[in-house]
Amino acid sequence: MAKVNYPEEFAGFAITDTKDWNKPKYITYKPKTFGENDIDIEIECCGLCGSDIMTAKGGDHGWGSITLPQVVGHEIIGKVVKIGSKVTLHKLGDRVGLGAQAFACLNCNRCHNGNEQYCANGVTTYDGKYPDGYISQGGYASHVRAHEYMCFPIPEKLQSIHAASLCCAGLTVFSPLKRYIPKNLPNNEIPKVAIVGLGGLGHLAVQFCKALGADAYVFSRTDSKKAQSFELGAKGFIATGIDGWEKEYFDQFDLILNCAIGLSGLNIDAFLSILKVEGRFCSVGLPAADEKYNVSPFTFFGNGSCLCSSALGSREEAVELFNLAAENNIVPWVETIPISEEGCETALTRAWDGDVRYRFVFTEFDKAFGTGSA
Amino acid sequence: MAKVNYPEEFAGFAITDTKDWNKPKYITYKPKTFGENDIDIEIECCGLCGSDIMTAKGGDHGWGSITLPQVVGHEIIGKVVKIGSKVTLHKLGDRVGLGAQAFACLNCNRCHNGNEQYCANGVTTYDGKYPDGYISQGGYASHVRAHEYMCFPIPEKLQSIHAASLCCAGLTVFSPLKRYIPKNLPNNEIPKVAIVGLGGLGHLAVQFCKALGADAYVFSRTDSKKAQSFELGAKGFIATGIDGWEKEYFDQFDLILNCAIGLSGLNIDAFLSILKVEGRFCSVGLPAADEKYNVSPFTFFGNGSCLCSSALGSREEAVELFNLAAENNIVPWVETIPISEEGCETALTRAWDGDVRYRFVFTEFDKAFGTGSA
Repeated sequence: MAKVNYPEEFAGFAITDTKDWNKPKYITYKPKTFGENDIDIEIECCGLCGSDIMTAKGGDHGWGSITLPQVVGHEIIGKVVKIGSKVTLHKLGDRVGLGAQAFACLNCNRCHNGNEQYCANGVTTYDGKYPDGYISQGGYASHVRAHEYMCFPIPEKLQSIHAASLCCAGLTVFSPLKRYIPKNLPNNEIPKVAIVGLGGLGHLAVQFCKALGADAYVFSRTDSKKAQSFELGAKGFIATGIDGWEKEYFDQFDLILNCAIGLSGLNIDAFLSILKVEGRFCSVGLPAADEKYNVSPFTFFGNGSCLCSSALGSREEAVELFNLAAENNIVPWVETIPISEEGCETALTRAWDGDVRYRFVFTEFDKAFGTGSA
Repeated sequence: MAKVNYPEEFAGFAITDTKDWNKPKYITYKPKTFGENDIDIEIECCGLCGSDIMTAKGGDHGWGSITLPQVVGHEIIGKVVKIGSKVTLHKLGDRVGLGAQAFACLNCNRCHNGNEQYCANGVTTYDGKYPDGYISQGGYASHVRAHEYMCFPIPEKLQSIHAASLCCAGLTVFSPLKRYIPKNLPNNEIPKVAIVGLGGLGHLAVQFCKALGADAYVFSRTDSKKAQSFELGAKGFIATGIDGWEKEYFDQFDLILNCAIGLSGLNIDAFLSILKVEGRFCSVGLPAADEKYNVSPFTFFGNGSCLCSSALGSREEAVELFNLAAENNIVPWVETIPISEEGCETALTRAWDGDVRYRFVFTEFDKAFGTGSA
């Protein structure tokens, strides 16, 4: 394998055709112009996120347009190898994480209010457009360049392969749990959270619920993930394959975190009925662009519940989640696979088939790209 | 007109066939069994609510099943003429209001938490089923029987014809405004509320926003209600008939109260885009049973906004709203019409056609039913 010609070029495994969404090819490319607040990360490992697949599939049952060639990957752990002149948050040699967002303006209301994940000028870690037109490239690569604010310090106690999955999957579930698990319930009641779907997102949500003082109940179609749910710390498990399952749980839940990706099998009316008054059904797993909620205003009418999605999280939340994970021994269940064209194909294919419990992390980037000596 | 044979019977104008949803007929009927906490109200006037029409239409583009004959009407003002042995909240001769809910168990979590409008054992003022099977009958009638807790004291300063519309339309908009207008915005910012649709609900929402310290902006298809919006106290008016109207209002609103009844013309994506992060789109106008939101999880993804409905309000909120209305001179714009078969037909037909600004109130019940001497 050729050694990457850094810093002139980055190298990575790129989607070159949406039909070949699971067959990335080795390419080299110019990074974005280096900004005063940018850092370069030499990548040690990178998780595989469902978004990688939905992006790679483009309009073919994915999220729509994609600029090709495209290096996906936004669960990145690596070492800081270059810092811009105004960088204050990191120094050379630090181990840092980068999730799904590489840039925010830090100058708008949303950024000022700790909601930079909703910055209208934000740029995603891959397939995002910078003001100068450069299309961002992600973490199935030798290096990645990002704004310092979007890169998070990783506590020493966390292994890189575990920290990787926390960068996107972890933050995606942690932010809504942190925001929407009610505080100070009457009579010191413990909040009850329904986690719909036990996969890459759900298995982390169960663990974070516990760390945040809530009881997690896993809702899954069949009993197949029951034992694993309890192993992860769930307080209960409900199989939703039986009609009328919801009756027993009427008015019991403070929050539903929908970690399931497809909506087609989801009986939203049933789920909303298990919420307490003004409870929230929050989706974090995003389906193909053409899948929709088909929901009547009456559906919410019985309890004033609401439906929302949550995107990523803020830097503040990311820093808190990594510390919480280190303190509470929150460990993503990952399968590692050395990065290569073959490794990418195997992992993308198996992940799409649901054949992983629960998250792939690509490793051995030094061997693939000739890095590691910096 | 025959004098009603109260207390043996009540008399009212009833829907007898959903095809004749706008042609109620004079009937007499037995009231429900009188409970220890019940009161009888001799009705002075009653507002016409959109729910009356949607109920009367049954499955014919309405809300589905209806038990016939059915006396609708749930914006009731009248005089207490009988009280149960355990009644403590009212005394004979009091002027009271009754909205869309006639009973709640007052013994469940929801009732204990000031959310009795969501009590699973609640009974609506009309077409609701009591535990003994009795189907409740509403306010186009000589009298109505209801639980004391659901009846509200009316401040002396309010005219009955105005208080009537506040019992349902008023409470329906007041409760979500009270709950969801954010308090303590940074820099003492004044909350901005979008009121979608200026009709029976919307014209009250504009007035209550002002009383609650928020700025109301009316969103309507055309400019036809612009002058009236400002007359009601709106801070702004936006015509949504022009494509792209939303761009100018990106990230500006704390809350959207959807008072429009039909969903077909509503561009939810556009509306959600004007919300601030975690803002709320709350529907209070309920369309026909077959109309649905067709909304993608992605729609909420840009700002973490949420979609909900709100139903009625609590007693505590009702009491607050009547006092607020009296203090702030909040006056529903009503057109009165003497109750009779002909009066009902005229008002129901014109209300369905949108030919009223903004609310009908039936009056002269004493003449129709031979009451008034109690």
